[in-house]
Amino acid sequence: MTEQFDIVRTSHVEFKVKDLERSRRFYVKTLGFIETYSDSSVIYLRGLEDRFSHSLILSKLGAVEEPSVDHIAYRVRREADLEPIASIFEKQTEKKALWLKEGEKERGRGRAIRVQDPFGFPIEFFCKMDEAEWNLQHFDRYSGARITRIDHVNVLTPEVGTVSDWYMGKLGFLCSEYTEAESKENYEKPILWATWLRRKPTVHDIAIMTGEGPRLHHAGFTVAEKDNILDCADILASSGYLDSMERGPGRHGISNAFFLYLRDPDGHRIELYTGDYLSADPDWKPLRWELKDPQRQTFWGAPAPERWFLEASKVRSVFDGTLIPTREPQNDPRKTVA
Amino acid sequence: MTEQFDIVRTSHVEFKVKDLERSRRFYVKTLGFIETYSDSSVIYLRGLEDRFSHSLILSKLGAVEEPSVDHIAYRVRREADLEPIASIFEKQTEKKALWLKEGEKERGRGRAIRVQDPFGFPIEFFCKMDEAEWNLQHFDRYSGARITRIDHVNVLTPEVGTVSDWYMGKLGFLCSEYTEAESKENYEKPILWATWLRRKPTVHDIAIMTGEGPRLHHAGFTVAEKDNILDCADILASSGYLDSMERGPGRHGISNAFFLYLRDPDGHRIELYTGDYLSADPDWKPLRWELKDPQRQTFWGAPAPERWFLEASKVRSVFDGTLIPTREPQNDPRKTVA
Amino acid sequence: MTEQFDIVRTSHVEFKVKDLERSRRFYVKTLGFIETYSDSSVIYLRGLEDRFSHSLILSKLGAVEEPSVDHIAYRVRREADLEPIASIFEKQTEKKALWLKEGEKERGRGRAIRVQDPFGFPIEFFCKMDEAEWNLQHFDRYSGARITRIDHVNVLTPEVGTVSDWYMGKLGFLCSEYTEAESKENYEKPILWATWLRRKPTVHDIAIMTGEGPRLHHAGFTVAEKDNILDCADILASSGYLDSMERGPGRHGISNAFFLYLRDPDGHRIELYTGDYLSADPDWKPLRWELKDPQRQTFWGAPAPERWFLEASKVRSVFDGTLIPTREPQNDPRKTVA
Amino acid sequence: MTEQFDIVRTSHVEFKVKDLERSRRFYVKTLGFIETYSDSSVIYLRGLEDRFSHSLILSKLGAVEEPSVDHIAYRVRREADLEPIASIFEKQTEKKALWLKEGEKERGRGRAIRVQDPFGFPIEFFCKMDEAEWNLQHFDRYSGARITRIDHVNVLTPEVGTVSDWYMGKLGFLCSEYTEAESKENYEKPILWATWLRRKPTVHDIAIMTGEGPRLHHAGFTVAEKDNILDCADILASSGYLDSMERGPGRHGISNAFFLYLRDPDGHRIELYTGDYLSADPDWKPLRWELKDPQRQTFWGAPAPERWFLEASKVRSVFDGTLIPTREPQNDPRKTVA
Repeated sequence: MTEQFDIVRTSHVEFKVKDLERSRRFYVKTLGFIETYSDSSVIYLRGLEDRFSHSLILSKLGAVEEPSVDHIAYRVRREADLEPIASIFEKQTEKKALWLKEGEKERGRGRAIRVQDPFGFPIEFFCKMDEAEWNLQHFDRYSGARITRIDHVNVLTPEVGTVSDWYMGKLGFLCSEYTEAESKENYEKPILWATWLRRKPTVHDIAIMTGEGPRLHHAGFTVAEKDNILDCADILASSGYLDSMERGPGRHGISNAFFLYLRDPDGHRIELYTGDYLSADPDWKPLRWELKDPQRQTFWGAPAPERWFLEASKVRSVFDGTLIPTREPQNDPRKTVA
Repeated sequence: MTEQFDIVRTSHVEFKVKDLERSRRFYVKTLGFIETYSDSSVIYLRGLEDRFSHSLILSKLGAVEEPSVDHIAYRVRREADLEPIASIFEKQTEKKALWLKEGEKERGRGRAIRVQDPFGFPIEFFCKMDEAEWNLQHFDRYSGARITRIDHVNVLTPEVGTVSDWYMGKLGFLCSEYTEAESKENYEKPILWATWLRRKPTVHDIAIMTGEGPRLHHAGFTVAEKDNILDCADILASSGYLDSMERGPGRHGISNAFFLYLRDPDGHRIELYTGDYLSADPDWKPLRWELKDPQRQTFWGAPAPERWFLEASKVRSVFDGTLIPTREPQNDPRKTVA
Repeated sequence: MTEQFDIVRTSHVEFKVKDLERSRRFYVKTLGFIETYSDSSVIYLRGLEDRFSHSLILSKLGAVEEPSVDHIAYRVRREADLEPIASIFEKQTEKKALWLKEGEKERGRGRAIRVQDPFGFPIEFFCKMDEAEWNLQHFDRYSGARITRIDHVNVLTPEVGTVSDWYMGKLGFLCSEYTEAESKENYEKPILWATWLRRKPTVHDIAIMTGEGPRLHHAGFTVAEKDNILDCADILASSGYLDSMERGPGRHGISNAFFLYLRDPDGHRIELYTGDYLSADPDWKPLRWELKDPQRQTFWGAPAPERWFLEASKVRSVFDGTLIPTREPQNDPRKTVA
Repeated sequence: MTEQFDIVRTSHVEFKVKDLERSRRFYVKTLGFIETYSDSSVIYLRGLEDRFSHSLILSKLGAVEEPSVDHIAYRVRREADLEPIASIFEKQTEKKALWLKEGEKERGRGRAIRVQDPFGFPIEFFCKMDEAEWNLQHFDRYSGARITRIDHVNVLTPEVGTVSDWYMGKLGFLCSEYTEAESKENYEKPILWATWLRRKPTVHDIAIMTGEGPRLHHAGFTVAEKDNILDCADILASSGYLDSMERGPGRHGISNAFFLYLRDPDGHRIELYTGDYLSADPDWKPLRWELKDPQRQTFWGAPAPERWFLEASKVRSVFDGTLIPTREPQNDPRKTVA
């Protein structure tokens, strides 16, 4: 199945936000994202390593709307990959994929499809994107968190097993790490609690965690080194963003990455992320973690705050922009993992 | 007064511990302290930058004793400084200072006096110490936290104002930073909550915080860079010392230092500390912090855990080794500061 | 062509060395490689991130032999990829590929082929390797340079254009960056001086530079952060390996990586390497550098020493172990690039 | 002698420069110094840790003058220290010290004396300086090299022994490290080649090296960590200052500091410097280095470029601003040390 097409990597997300200037102060002035294009309704952002138009879009909400996620986008290897991918979704959801022309609804992106996946997530697939200036060696333009590129998205759903199986079986994602609960007191047999799935050979392009969903838990952006994250914490603390720092800095057990979780002015969560590993080999076996292991979430043992487990961004319909209703999981999301 | 003598810096502390091998695994094998001398009852340790015998002594407890602090030691500039210092203590406490010959009770240390200060703390002053090999440029011997030297001690007392005034007025300490409480709801006028006092031109040689005392809250040891602290957290988490990491890594508001607080196998607390500032100028004014400012303790906003405020090491009599009784402060020690 | 098989990444190299104990002191004790297996004739080494048997093999030379490279190995995705790869080499070189059974000539490696490529390099392809313990989160075992895995090889040949075209056209390598000379004074038209070719989506699996060849210029190993390289320089300087540090630490223009080049006790060169970029996108265009640009080699401008250009390891015949004769390039190799 | 007064530390230097805007682009925009005050003839700069007006002054040269050093300034503990210091210089040089009122010739500085020392160097002593905003915890204002404060000056003179003896004997400086030449082939007995002398308890406030003098070799400014220096190299290389990077980054043997030497647009040399050690103890013995030891200059073994040894800034008369004539040393300055 996966030989028919090739999903390359997580490409970008679009956040709906209330106040573009407020968002610009956070993302551009403080975190140091590079602005590719903006007008009165949208800002396109990219990282220092990006050679293409955008890895984050901030678009202005209508007056009565609430902050939410417009879509999550993946890049495919060839234009011809879009057709078989559309078919898979159409067969499963009995809804036509939305075909977009170059630049339609999203400046700088090539021809694309948008679908609502069987679990409610708004997804875009595309092959081409306009080039943009590469800033990796313009060190004089580095500031804030020195974000290099997008790395992954992390989503909440009440049905981790089903979603993970579908992404692996239908779309060719591979599992790098996963969490199971197996304490006898609580469960008859091991329950799959969360999975870290990849297309590019790092730890993940998407993590799927148990929780009220469909919601986006966070988008993860890479930085080059741990010190960039410490510096960013200092800068946020000096810039009036004390409450934006939700969890960390610290090291994950899962993925081994060093992290800091931030909440943007609309409550969208992003992760600064560095130091995971190459997973290129075909026989790289998934790592299993137990839900009760304190080092799974934070290798140094510190627990995540409750709001990290409970709060997340609702997602929108790719067809009409309405918010997708959510369902609670059967199990307590505070035991989920990062 | 201070022209009669010159206290140079905090030199070392002696911890009484239950099991020398257990302590050696923590301090030498895991944190990477250099062992200068040891026998069946004591281990003398120094940092990578030390050119003298020791900055930490671990000595074996008797069978029925509890972990405690034998003494805190300061170095003076000249042998002749000991006499006037002894006089000050004797006048205040009406107890004779204990004079120790070279090597008496402490291998490698020169002639010394020991006193119980007016607030119950066991203090040693001395001028000379045996030289030891310098390891700063033996990078092949670096391991663990890469501790360079002792920086300060931090003590708890119910009477911060009185103790601070005495150390400044009688012993010539200078104040670098301090915390006051001034919320109208709780206090008639500002209350001095904690002080950071120095002899060497850094932030402090001793911090004095409100709490049940006399007790030693922690001994602070320097490392060269923040990354040494992150590495140490990784190593502790890999070595079965997850519970030893009590607070941090993070940045202090007060002192600006990057820190990690550890509890050793006997519960003694040490701080890994780096990145404070030079305070050499004569007109360097103390910085004032408000007790209610969350950035005072941790610049990034994260609160300290309760046990960090409540637990500390009792201190011993320099005369007979008995534990000095403690008194509670009038105000809640959980609001004290690091 | 490349759809018939999938070369995953550079897997390992085998160096022939004179004295295994001397090599162990350098690679294991000083640089901190993990030893998977050793006996009186060979040492198998891996990095902290490796989950498989080895990324470097050191094997003992016969009495009259000289230090040289036994083979360079690439991993393929499927066992079935070996057959079509063998055909390509056999067609080009008119020599039968050497088929090796699991463990034959190399402990822990699965079924494999070895070929002498059309330009003289000894190459191995295989799919399976025995698993080994993962040390990435055993931070208590980190030492020396904290090497995580192999990243690439860099070879010298008098015919960069021909070799690069062959690796790209026949084996499916992609070009990330390249250097051309185009000064009118010296050349009629631009000359391709060096190329950086990848299979895994980083900058390269193999770099091909103009020089006397076929020879291996160096094998590149990754570390997590720049500080690991600075620490390694300190450790080498403290351990009697001052002369081993040939070039750096510094930042490359090409690849953007931070680097340090070392010479092992037999003269084999390795590079410590960190901080290049993800090149996963299908339309990632090669970056062009001019030979005369000083920042191409070292972004900070410092030139490489002459021996870095001239010295390299000869390679052996996969059939009989004899040294492959070398040829000089037409142009001065000192102008080549790293 | 030294009990009559107390020189606290090196405070600042004044460079005469040709083009203030060109200097501002280098020091403020690129290196990130904080500008305290400027007008059409002068710029006052301070570091992130400074709480006082300035640690570097850039003042505009007259049309026909050449770049040079106006004066080097030291801070004293008490106003009353100025009188005995003036006496020492007047007795030695038979020239009256120049007494300056608060703000005279230098905005923000208190009452001061200026003298030409017996070896030709223009020196200022003062006690008070105006306060300025502290930026250490305004991390949002950090940029460039993140310079924290001045650390030391380094001067060239043909008579290191005489100058060092005078500074130690008359002004109370202490020696931390020194270099001697003792190869039998060249010298009858050891020759003192360079000294590192301190007042504040770090490695030095002034280094005195053999060379054509009196000239200022460089002013050294501290940064918090090695990474700040690597980042600065990247920024300089991205900003058109490739030729400004003269030596490093690397680690010194002497002082153990990590360094990078820069040349400003007028050719004045500054050093970015971090990671030396505390030298507070009274019995801290000077470290001896041999001139022929390659690790003395650069612990990793790389030699300094020739211009580092030969080029330096001439100094001016405190009385009339004329350039002080220089003399060559008897020995080759290329063997001097940093």
